[in-house]
Amino acid sequence: MIYLLELIGVAFFAVSGVAASRAKRPDVVGAFILAFATALGGGVIRDAILGVPARSFRDANYLVAIVLGGLVALRLPGVIQRLGSTLPVADAFGLGLFNASGMVKALESGTVDPVFAVVLGAITGTGGGIFRDVLCGEMPALLRPGELYVTTCLAGGVVGLAAFWLGASLSAVMGITAAVTIVFRLAAIRYEWRLPAVQWDGGGGD
Amino acid sequence: MIYLLELIGVAFFAVSGVAASRAKRPDVVGAFILAFATALGGGVIRDAILGVPARSFRDANYLVAIVLGGLVALRLPGVIQRLGSTLPVADAFGLGLFNASGMVKALESGTVDPVFAVVLGAITGTGGGIFRDVLCGEMPALLRPGELYVTTCLAGGVVGLAAFWLGASLSAVMGITAAVTIVFRLAAIRYEWRLPAVQWDGGGGD
Amino acid sequence: MIYLLELIGVAFFAVSGVAASRAKRPDVVGAFILAFATALGGGVIRDAILGVPARSFRDANYLVAIVLGGLVALRLPGVIQRLGSTLPVADAFGLGLFNASGMVKALESGTVDPVFAVVLGAITGTGGGIFRDVLCGEMPALLRPGELYVTTCLAGGVVGLAAFWLGASLSAVMGITAAVTIVFRLAAIRYEWRLPAVQWDGGGGD
Repeated sequence: MIYLLELIGVAFFAVSGVAASRAKRPDVVGAFILAFATALGGGVIRDAILGVPARSFRDANYLVAIVLGGLVALRLPGVIQRLGSTLPVADAFGLGLFNASGMVKALESGTVDPVFAVVLGAITGTGGGIFRDVLCGEMPALLRPGELYVTTCLAGGVVGLAAFWLGASLSAVMGITAAVTIVFRLAAIRYEWRLPAVQWDGGGGD
Repeated sequence: MIYLLELIGVAFFAVSGVAASRAKRPDVVGAFILAFATALGGGVIRDAILGVPARSFRDANYLVAIVLGGLVALRLPGVIQRLGSTLPVADAFGLGLFNASGMVKALESGTVDPVFAVVLGAITGTGGGIFRDVLCGEMPALLRPGELYVTTCLAGGVVGLAAFWLGASLSAVMGITAAVTIVFRLAAIRYEWRLPAVQWDGGGGD
Repeated sequence: MIYLLELIGVAFFAVSGVAASRAKRPDVVGAFILAFATALGGGVIRDAILGVPARSFRDANYLVAIVLGGLVALRLPGVIQRLGSTLPVADAFGLGLFNASGMVKALESGTVDPVFAVVLGAITGTGGGIFRDVLCGEMPALLRPGELYVTTCLAGGVVGLAAFWLGASLSAVMGITAAVTIVFRLAAIRYEWRLPAVQWDGGGGD
């Protein structure tokens, strides 16, 4: 079940990689490179930080999911346009799942402090998008004000960490983290949550 | 023999790193940083994905090859200009060798699905160039339409994988992958092969 | 003692990450992402190359140091401005310490040639700044002529390597490397040292 959700998340992130590449007008291989980097980038960075071989490379189904997601995005842009408002929902599910699985893998590893497990979840959830933007030669979207992408991951991770410290099992931690992340993300979109702006002009000094 | 070819590939990629940096007019250390990143970037990413220490860092000869390649590019630009049309040939050999060695190391590792070994070969062959372009603040060349760089690696890798599944030894797989990659790359240059353009304007939906 | 210095170096690099982000006007989470990437990026790359789990993720104190550094930079910009001329001194200490610790960890690992240990020290010292600049969508500062950042690391590393070959203990190597790096960096700033420019217009060919 979790495995199936993860493959769906991978396919969705592949769609997002192809969609983001439109402005650059790459050829078909270029579009698939971006699909690949977006879908697997976060997990690859996570595993490199954990010092273990990249898990996604063990399993050809990940590649199948990426190719399917990429093909849909390339051949059926009409479908994606019609999906329209359901896309952010799918994105929120992908983000929540990646965040939760990254955090739990860090907690399992024994080489990461639990507080850093929250960070590693956020890296797993957002690393692919960073890769995608860097490969496109753009400033990563998540550094732009108003995107609550990383904040969402941290919110889910902090609640999951609290559950972990209260003695919840790792699968409960995973479920809680994923659920909070998804709900937070959808609420952030629905109610247009914003982080406080930073007063960069100096001043401050309180 | 393979080892010697690999060092030559490293030196060549160092030349390409320095050549690519010209427009940025770095100082001499900046030029060598780019030479270094271009020559070793692909292999370092490959080993990080495999979860093993970077092999190139074990062997000071790689550094010697990079320094020699960088010095030639810096001190003898005339030589490189005169080499002119032979440069793409050297580049094709470097690409083929990196692609083949990346794929075989992935097949040997036991932690990578054979289908992903093809991907890892392409990452080994092209990762250094991606590093180089990102460090220069440019969109990686291989995302621009018309470059059959990644396609070349995949073509060589798929033929090598077929040989692997038919029972060929790893050294045979390496030779076949390298040969197909090199021939494909030279043919792509000679006959100006292009990938089909993607119809980004929408339409599609077939 | 070394541990405490390392935490101070981390906090300082966090300040530098936030300060560098000003032009991009990120929100508060964006600023902390840059603080995090600047402070830990070099060490994470080093450990990925060594094939070991990222050491900084084991220890929540690193996160505390980053948060403290980031908060100071965000809330007390006046303090940082008043520190003014002492900032480059703090930066030189951070650089020297990161360079020395990266080099010694490489020498200890047994998987890196001593010559490459010098390179790995420089990567540890400068990798965070590269991460910061790439995430900001800018060409890394250390490729711009006139910055003796990498050169400083290499100078300290070469002297440390000479000490290592003469039989010095690892802690002596660490002290020597850090001291030479710090002194070299401060001298480079004080006397405005410059590397020889490269004659990119051709010419050369001697």
